[in-house]
Amino acid sequence: MALKTRAEYMASLKRLRPNIYKFGERIEDVTTHPATRRVVESHARAYDACQDAKLSSLFTTTSFLTGERIHRHNSLMPSMEDVISNSRFKRQMFQLTGTCTGALCAGWNAMNTMWAVTQEVDGAQGTDYHERLKGWVLRAEGEGWTVAGALTDAKGNRSLKASQQPDPDSNLRIVRMGEEGVVIRGAKLMICGVAASNEIFLLPGTAYGEAEKEFAVACAVPRDVEGLTIIETRRPSDTREQDGGFDIPTETGITQAYLIFEDVFVPKERVFLCREFAYTAKIIQIFTAIYRACIGACVAGQGDIMIGAAILMARANGLPARTFSSKLVEMAINNETTFTMGVGSIALGNRHPSGIWIPDSLTAHANKVHVATLPYETKRLCQEIGGGIVETGCFPSYQDLMDTRYGKLVQKYIKAGACSSETRARAARLTEWLTLGAGVPGCMHGGGSPDGARLVVRSLTPMEKYAELARKLAGIAEEIPDPGK
Amino acid sequence: MALKTRAEYMASLKRLRPNIYKFGERIEDVTTHPATRRVVESHARAYDACQDAKLSSLFTTTSFLTGERIHRHNSLMPSMEDVISNSRFKRQMFQLTGTCTGALCAGWNAMNTMWAVTQEVDGAQGTDYHERLKGWVLRAEGEGWTVAGALTDAKGNRSLKASQQPDPDSNLRIVRMGEEGVVIRGAKLMICGVAASNEIFLLPGTAYGEAEKEFAVACAVPRDVEGLTIIETRRPSDTREQDGGFDIPTETGITQAYLIFEDVFVPKERVFLCREFAYTAKIIQIFTAIYRACIGACVAGQGDIMIGAAILMARANGLPARTFSSKLVEMAINNETTFTMGVGSIALGNRHPSGIWIPDSLTAHANKVHVATLPYETKRLCQEIGGGIVETGCFPSYQDLMDTRYGKLVQKYIKAGACSSETRARAARLTEWLTLGAGVPGCMHGGGSPDGARLVVRSLTPMEKYAELARKLAGIAEEIPDPGK
Amino acid sequence: MALKTRAEYMASLKRLRPNIYKFGERIEDVTTHPATRRVVESHARAYDACQDAKLSSLFTTTSFLTGERIHRHNSLMPSMEDVISNSRFKRQMFQLTGTCTGALCAGWNAMNTMWAVTQEVDGAQGTDYHERLKGWVLRAEGEGWTVAGALTDAKGNRSLKASQQPDPDSNLRIVRMGEEGVVIRGAKLMICGVAASNEIFLLPGTAYGEAEKEFAVACAVPRDVEGLTIIETRRPSDTREQDGGFDIPTETGITQAYLIFEDVFVPKERVFLCREFAYTAKIIQIFTAIYRACIGACVAGQGDIMIGAAILMARANGLPARTFSSKLVEMAINNETTFTMGVGSIALGNRHPSGIWIPDSLTAHANKVHVATLPYETKRLCQEIGGGIVETGCFPSYQDLMDTRYGKLVQKYIKAGACSSETRARAARLTEWLTLGAGVPGCMHGGGSPDGARLVVRSLTPMEKYAELARKLAGIAEEIPDPGK
Amino acid sequence: MALKTRAEYMASLKRLRPNIYKFGERIEDVTTHPATRRVVESHARAYDACQDAKLSSLFTTTSFLTGERIHRHNSLMPSMEDVISNSRFKRQMFQLTGTCTGALCAGWNAMNTMWAVTQEVDGAQGTDYHERLKGWVLRAEGEGWTVAGALTDAKGNRSLKASQQPDPDSNLRIVRMGEEGVVIRGAKLMICGVAASNEIFLLPGTAYGEAEKEFAVACAVPRDVEGLTIIETRRPSDTREQDGGFDIPTETGITQAYLIFEDVFVPKERVFLCREFAYTAKIIQIFTAIYRACIGACVAGQGDIMIGAAILMARANGLPARTFSSKLVEMAINNETTFTMGVGSIALGNRHPSGIWIPDSLTAHANKVHVATLPYETKRLCQEIGGGIVETGCFPSYQDLMDTRYGKLVQKYIKAGACSSETRARAARLTEWLTLGAGVPGCMHGGGSPDGARLVVRSLTPMEKYAELARKLAGIAEEIPDPGK
Repeated sequence: MALKTRAEYMASLKRLRPNIYKFGERIEDVTTHPATRRVVESHARAYDACQDAKLSSLFTTTSFLTGERIHRHNSLMPSMEDVISNSRFKRQMFQLTGTCTGALCAGWNAMNTMWAVTQEVDGAQGTDYHERLKGWVLRAEGEGWTVAGALTDAKGNRSLKASQQPDPDSNLRIVRMGEEGVVIRGAKLMICGVAASNEIFLLPGTAYGEAEKEFAVACAVPRDVEGLTIIETRRPSDTREQDGGFDIPTETGITQAYLIFEDVFVPKERVFLCREFAYTAKIIQIFTAIYRACIGACVAGQGDIMIGAAILMARANGLPARTFSSKLVEMAINNETTFTMGVGSIALGNRHPSGIWIPDSLTAHANKVHVATLPYETKRLCQEIGGGIVETGCFPSYQDLMDTRYGKLVQKYIKAGACSSETRARAARLTEWLTLGAGVPGCMHGGGSPDGARLVVRSLTPMEKYAELARKLAGIAEEIPDPGK
Repeated sequence: MALKTRAEYMASLKRLRPNIYKFGERIEDVTTHPATRRVVESHARAYDACQDAKLSSLFTTTSFLTGERIHRHNSLMPSMEDVISNSRFKRQMFQLTGTCTGALCAGWNAMNTMWAVTQEVDGAQGTDYHERLKGWVLRAEGEGWTVAGALTDAKGNRSLKASQQPDPDSNLRIVRMGEEGVVIRGAKLMICGVAASNEIFLLPGTAYGEAEKEFAVACAVPRDVEGLTIIETRRPSDTREQDGGFDIPTETGITQAYLIFEDVFVPKERVFLCREFAYTAKIIQIFTAIYRACIGACVAGQGDIMIGAAILMARANGLPARTFSSKLVEMAINNETTFTMGVGSIALGNRHPSGIWIPDSLTAHANKVHVATLPYETKRLCQEIGGGIVETGCFPSYQDLMDTRYGKLVQKYIKAGACSSETRARAARLTEWLTLGAGVPGCMHGGGSPDGARLVVRSLTPMEKYAELARKLAGIAEEIPDPGK
Repeated sequence: MALKTRAEYMASLKRLRPNIYKFGERIEDVTTHPATRRVVESHARAYDACQDAKLSSLFTTTSFLTGERIHRHNSLMPSMEDVISNSRFKRQMFQLTGTCTGALCAGWNAMNTMWAVTQEVDGAQGTDYHERLKGWVLRAEGEGWTVAGALTDAKGNRSLKASQQPDPDSNLRIVRMGEEGVVIRGAKLMICGVAASNEIFLLPGTAYGEAEKEFAVACAVPRDVEGLTIIETRRPSDTREQDGGFDIPTETGITQAYLIFEDVFVPKERVFLCREFAYTAKIIQIFTAIYRACIGACVAGQGDIMIGAAILMARANGLPARTFSSKLVEMAINNETTFTMGVGSIALGNRHPSGIWIPDSLTAHANKVHVATLPYETKRLCQEIGGGIVETGCFPSYQDLMDTRYGKLVQKYIKAGACSSETRARAARLTEWLTLGAGVPGCMHGGGSPDGARLVVRSLTPMEKYAELARKLAGIAEEIPDPGK
Repeated sequence: MALKTRAEYMASLKRLRPNIYKFGERIEDVTTHPATRRVVESHARAYDACQDAKLSSLFTTTSFLTGERIHRHNSLMPSMEDVISNSRFKRQMFQLTGTCTGALCAGWNAMNTMWAVTQEVDGAQGTDYHERLKGWVLRAEGEGWTVAGALTDAKGNRSLKASQQPDPDSNLRIVRMGEEGVVIRGAKLMICGVAASNEIFLLPGTAYGEAEKEFAVACAVPRDVEGLTIIETRRPSDTREQDGGFDIPTETGITQAYLIFEDVFVPKERVFLCREFAYTAKIIQIFTAIYRACIGACVAGQGDIMIGAAILMARANGLPARTFSSKLVEMAINNETTFTMGVGSIALGNRHPSGIWIPDSLTAHANKVHVATLPYETKRLCQEIGGGIVETGCFPSYQDLMDTRYGKLVQKYIKAGACSSETRARAARLTEWLTLGAGVPGCMHGGGSPDGARLVVRSLTPMEKYAELARKLAGIAEEIPDPGK
């Protein structure tokens, strides 16, 4: 099949059953409703990019399965270069949209993760998950699907395991198994880009033990599957999305949703893990290695736009950009750090026997700590360069700029440099949107918390080996036992 | 006169002419309109505190002029302890409101600043500004006014001086002078707490030279003076203030306004500087010394609430607060740093011949750099502890929690620890409001940018003296001239 | 008595019994031996300063006991201003010497601490410690003693209490008590400035419980008391102190010593606490409050010299200092932070009933965390500005610069800017000495570790109060219990 | 030829003419003299590693030229994997030695750099440099040479170009050219590992213009070439290298030397660039790209040892390592950051037409900024964990520990945990050596200053492109010109 176009993508979304809600209202058409059209626009730009001579080599690739030209975001990634391209793709998408395009991310990673894990499960258990997944991947490739990925469960009490929760639905679980498939119940929370997706790929949210077999489920469902209710979350200043004017100056945006599964039936050809709890740790390990190696590219891409926004603000304020050289360089170093360290962890990875490339876990998780800290610093610098007008979005609304009585006066006083007051206002609102508004991606806890990443760093750092090296270097003959052991 | 009560304060605001606008609408009653009632509530708590046995000694004091009991926020501050009390007052107000109460801050500082400067001007120029100011201060004390302070001009092109701007109104200026008073035109931007104020104290926004005489004006005007139009700015997620429910869970808030002066007449007894440009640098110097010594208390107070919010979130998530001890301690150290360094700069200050206490400039400005950085780190830590739900305010709106179809399900999945889902939601929204929402104060550029503060640090640090000390210590006999000189 | 002069001070040291060793050698005259003459020179400058018109008001004061003019470093400190002067004194001493003058610090604080504690003990126990101490203070004042202070015990295994140590001598202890006095055994380690002191004031190194009564001892001993052996520690590049030339270009220095007490008799008039274990916590609390409030002044003073050294290096390299303005400002902010925050914690303190001023503990300890981190950053910046030559002291030795065969060539190639190669070399060695050499003070663990300080911050921060404030602000009605309790 | 053994390596050094000096003394045998035997031992370990089953695949490789097994440190690096192996080699060498092995680094990079550049020069100028270099590389491979690399010139006044210096020798230059070769004069300073090298590869220290033709010289010389005098620099605490005992507890070490060229003749087959000034910028660009991509591995390797040393200290103090988990994780993240970001910049590189792989400049230079900052933080953490004893190396010398009178007492009081006092002392001295002593590598300015790296980041970051992306995202129609242009 030929590559999907923006129009085909839009049409594919319009065909879906309306099961998304926000502010108590059901959204009939995600491509036009103010609460969702921006996230759809964001994702549509990935389809546009396939037609763009400069970008098509990044946005398309050759299928590992069929050798045909496909959307890169539907591809299995057999080589280091492919995973680096995943990173580049993410940075490019942030540059094109200013924000996250979540339905071109976690679903893609989930599919790759399960490609490896199903091969392991099948080899050990004699199941046929790998073949089922292959069938689904071929459809995804063929139809150019946009696929959200969902891991995070409601979780309930953070100090209890899934099997100990007062409410068993706190983690998504299998409530019935049959010949034809499984029935699942529970919720996946804070899932990015669902409103722009055709499909949702579900993975277990954590590693489960034997008592938690029922939670060990991986599968894919259409976004509009029966029994699934989707509620979009409130984001900072999201009601501006419903206004006219330029208080959000972009056409793009991101959403995060609560997915509520009320006994949803999933036919067996869409089920890729079912109660094999012992493999859930592996799923988390592979998924996070890929995800956290690449997420540095996202925050780099948004940081690139923040550099741009800061330069626009400086100029709109009447100052040359070089006034802020050292701050701009600091921002650039932050961006290149999360991006390049991610690329490094990919380069330090290995090919899984199933054929896909898996980045190095230790360094991918170390990078996650930077992803959870450096962008905050980049945002701060962007606000510092931009001046008071951008710090808390501190100027009158679009309505007030256009007011017939005093709008002209507001505009007069907003004007600073050589550009128009509208231009300065748009640049300031862009900065607000990037740093305090609806465009802020969830880089801190997205894909797991930095403390979780620190635990992985701790467990993968060969501390005892280093102690041994130090002991030898210091010429210490005796053993030094750890008092705590 | 007795201390003003909340009711009297409210009544005094209701009496004012309606000249405040937001979203194209004129606000008839600031005490009840959704866009302004929260900032009024914030300020009202300072009047309540005067009646509170534990707080009254901080919120009231003895008048330097009359010896009577007055609201502390109307007081001249003759001693180090008084300025430290200004700091404590600010921290306490943030603890009581979670945000800035701007009309109990800059106006108070402006009055103290001019107390010193008018004495100097009068001594040198034979004017009677000090006496005029004394009259105004007695009224402020007597009536328990809430006074916004306004320095920041529209400024126009940041690379040009006021006298070079294409639009002469870019900085507030005197357009006519007469026997009875002056007429002023221009705008003061991003002024905090105006909607909660009775009066506005206007100071020059920068140091002016002879070519800029017309901009050298200091005076006080009633908030509803003829010719003044006030437009409130948009803040992050400010439309939630108009909703019911708890998407903003506090009753409090802050506003920032554009003040547009269209030929406003100010009678001479309210004018405290008029074309004496040579004193504008002194005004800036004294004002920023007081302001920047004390502003560290504001961000400390908000940081205190962030510690509290982080603890609530940990518990609402099912985790003991001690899980996050090291992060909470880091937050506490950030808070104590800006607060205590400010107190230090007060203690290093001096009494001005006019009787008021002026903090040390060098260290007050050095503290400003922390004020512009540490709170960002505190916010990040608060989000890190709180989890994904607080990071981008990532859960459904109040309307969705209450929806008759699926509200119960949303609530079920929001529940985590022992508390109700409403409690967890309120705690999460509080964190969002503090870190990404309408409660974020403008600590970066408020009272001037950190780069401005760095320039002051540079000019007040005795670099050559230190080079000389080092030279002697190193036993270097020859002079080492600076190649750049 | 008149103030002590440098000559009298030197003479007083020469009179002491030689009981100090380094590199296996007994030091016969500390004022001339290469290993100790620098630390003596450092302290002598405090005596010189009393004769200096600009400095005498800082270096002398009026006795709280007699009203006579005394050396400030012998004074009881009854007021906030006095403790701030302690801070200023420390900063000034670092400016005069480039390093620590430890015998003008901990002993002074110890004496003030015990002034308060002995009053409490006597009040409760009917002892006469306060009177004994008064006698000793009068002698100290009268004779202008330099007094080292010693708290840190050998400690042994850090996970065991003093009473549990396999070797009971791991903490200094009372081995015999009699009518005339006590006999003590054990060691105090890493004690600064002992070689320059007349007396040593001993305090318990930690808070002790009932099982550890024997360790609860405070007293003062002459530096050369019978039974005390002092071994000086190795410091980075300390053997250069024994060379000629300018590989250490200063005349000043600091030492840290091991004090080994082998059954030392202390007559009762010199004993200020003896087995009253319940007061040891109070001693630690007061001592650390004073010490940590003021220690920020030390690192500020050394940072001032680092600013100076960095400027010298820039110029010696041929560059104007302004090339590095932003780095110099960063260094200055670091210096002012630890100094001013310390002053703030003094200003937030209280007067003890015994008459001395005690800084605020919470903020003094919070400052200690900065003291343990910011100077590392300041050193790094100093090395960054200075260039490769200062980073690891990377150029040939004095001997090689003077070598008859190739010394001229080395000098030729060291020359950079307008100054001589000797000048550049001296400036570079000064930087090395300050950042990597024998002049580095122990600011990280001196007076206790930053982790200890963090524990104090944790215990003194009213976390529950903040949680309660946040709960009220968020409009949360129910209690949220801590799951860990 | 077979791989070189440690014994052959030692013998090859012994054969060289003695032309190295320190403290005014000529070093007759670098393999045994206290000032140089440690650096030789460090490098010898790379020869040992070739015989080690676990390490040989990293320490040897296949020659790009001959297909034979060679020492990796003599190899041309045609692939990304080869340059990543350079990084791994460096990290491994730091783990084996605790410090820099500079003669296995810059020379190797210089040879690769010139492989590319000579091909370009020859192509454009018809010269035969590439062939000459090939000859030299074949000898280096064949003989398993250790090759120091030297770029840094004396430079003289940093604000003047080479051609403007009062002393023309401030940068290494060609003083005569002839049929047979060239004669060079000047100095290369702070060159690492020279005493352990067989050869020295000389590159221009900066990019030169036409007026500076004479400085555009690249060549290789034997370490003992006639006319070359080498003076070793003083390093922190380097005289301990001459002591017995364990005040430096390692057998390894690093040196940095001044190389003084007094009209040294270089035969033309060893000359690889001669007055082709236009290519000097390219040399710097390629050299720094490789160097700065890999230098992060060095500081990572030393950081690994610091983790080990910190663990040893914790245990030697009686505490379990997990007490310091969060600090150890922070150290590990610092290490993985500089290492992995370097690997990332390699992976983002390209193959040069000459066949060698060149890392990405932008990200390699961004990494250099981390290399100049993060290790300082790692050192600080190592000192924080280790306690006061490691901070300034604060305990008596080896001589004092062994003193017949009081040595036993010193040992008694140094003992803390379950291990002997010698063990604790060795671990503490290791930490001192790593953080304040002779083992500190020059990571700040080594291979160029961080400010130089920041300039490269600035010039390679597409700031205008980002401004354009931001402008489009914000829907801004007009151009916003830069006021400074």
